[in-house]
Amino acid sequence: MTPAADFLGLSQYLADEGVQVEAALERAVAGLEASVAPELGSAVRHGVLGGGKRLRPILCVSAYTACGGERSPALYDLAASLELIHAYSLMHDDLPCMDDAELRRGRSTTHREHGEDVAVRAGALLIPAAGLLALRSCQALGCADDLARAVSGTLMEAAGAGGMVGGQWLDLLGEGRALGGEELNAIHRRKTGALLAASLVMGAIAAGVDQETQRGMREYGSSVGLAFQIADDILDVTQSAETLGKNPSDNDLEKSTYVALYGLEDARERAHAQVRAALAALERSGLSAAPLEALARYVVDRDK
Amino acid sequence: MTPAADFLGLSQYLADEGVQVEAALERAVAGLEASVAPELGSAVRHGVLGGGKRLRPILCVSAYTACGGERSPALYDLAASLELIHAYSLMHDDLPCMDDAELRRGRSTTHREHGEDVAVRAGALLIPAAGLLALRSCQALGCADDLARAVSGTLMEAAGAGGMVGGQWLDLLGEGRALGGEELNAIHRRKTGALLAASLVMGAIAAGVDQETQRGMREYGSSVGLAFQIADDILDVTQSAETLGKNPSDNDLEKSTYVALYGLEDARERAHAQVRAALAALERSGLSAAPLEALARYVVDRDK
Repeated sequence: MTPAADFLGLSQYLADEGVQVEAALERAVAGLEASVAPELGSAVRHGVLGGGKRLRPILCVSAYTACGGERSPALYDLAASLELIHAYSLMHDDLPCMDDAELRRGRSTTHREHGEDVAVRAGALLIPAAGLLALRSCQALGCADDLARAVSGTLMEAAGAGGMVGGQWLDLLGEGRALGGEELNAIHRRKTGALLAASLVMGAIAAGVDQETQRGMREYGSSVGLAFQIADDILDVTQSAETLGKNPSDNDLEKSTYVALYGLEDARERAHAQVRAALAALERSGLSAAPLEALARYVVDRDK
Repeated sequence: MTPAADFLGLSQYLADEGVQVEAALERAVAGLEASVAPELGSAVRHGVLGGGKRLRPILCVSAYTACGGERSPALYDLAASLELIHAYSLMHDDLPCMDDAELRRGRSTTHREHGEDVAVRAGALLIPAAGLLALRSCQALGCADDLARAVSGTLMEAAGAGGMVGGQWLDLLGEGRALGGEELNAIHRRKTGALLAASLVMGAIAAGVDQETQRGMREYGSSVGLAFQIADDILDVTQSAETLGKNPSDNDLEKSTYVALYGLEDARERAHAQVRAALAALERSGLSAAPLEALARYVVDRDK
């Protein structure tokens, strides 16, 4: 029996960590609301506190604790900075000039609720807010200044040209034509993978581990990210819009997906292969913590 | 004769500093182009390298040198991070869902040239790029890690809820109704003033001066920012769209302006009062460098 199979309490773990993450997000949103006009504050609240799996913050906390750090409000604040970036990306992805989505997590998207201008501003506002939150929470965590700089730099890199935005753009370019497996991997390593990997690396750096261990965390995160995206493509064809809480699916936009490319069975196998790669990276770096192992399996076993 | 009146070479100073700033912006843009799809890279180039006074980077360099620092490529890189934030704000301000502007600096706006989706992405992309550039150039400048953290934090604060985005939003809210002088000042202290003040504070922090001197720089920047905005309102009614290179003016959008509120003569007097306040702040902090004095006068004497 692997250590992860022993970790039977994943749903409790996700629920417990989720409560702390929500509290940190509430602190961050309340701070922003205090600084901006009410309409903009409401849009930020709608976009950030509208549910979600909170996978990135939970991965960050799990990495930090796997690397020997202790839980604290400052740790959850640091973790929340990742969710602010994720929320920005969803707000902008959903805009009329992008995916023109009406629903996200079973509710109206931010621009449908608050207007396009507000959604553009609210999204953009979250980027410097996340950068500041990362810097300040590292300080509150007692990280050395050079680590705080590295943590904040990792977040900005993942949110920027080399990471998410670059990948989002490749994704839009790919609409309407069939992409190969390498192209699809390249898109998702940046679009989803960069921020997921950053979640783990930020936790590891803040905990003060060496570069070798940071690299292990990055490899784990990158594989988990691809597994997550393949699982998303599978869920898009196997689950109803009601369960997923979003609409339209990538299918409708003629985006290339792993399922379209490989078929359902092969896509499933590829997702599991990425999970195995993630677990191997953990083992190599000596960080085989039960939550990280269980989380790697969770990203392909979830039902939404 | 004041020291500033001795500083007759302002246009040469602006031209010389401008060349170095353009070179730093070219480096930053080339780096981004290498990481993203060509269309997105072109939009970044269009938005960032499309001319402009480069006032924020030049203020940053002037503050750094007034505080005893030496010029270097890393200093201009740091200064360029401010212009990336400024360029983002213009790209998003011009969007169809915001000001719906066709022209900026005598050319098509970024979304008219490259599409709305690209302009939203390109703008958002510049925020983490600016944060990273600030962190990295501080390191290259040899700043201590705590100063690098403070410089980057100052940039993110000015770009975020407490600064620019908050102010932009108040500005949109004010459209179509008459604002009082206090409201107008509150908007512009954040919309324009926050980033201008940050330009000076970042230069001062990077140069390693004490908090008292940083405060002086912030006061100078805040007053110069208001003077700049009042001068903008004056130019909007006294200069042709051709000279300004932009269209429509704030008048057409029924935004409150200093000229509408106070009349042309009184607005001019108020701009000059802000310049006097800026010069007094410089003198109090013992930083009466000729370029900073000349720059304070320039913001109200410029013709576009």
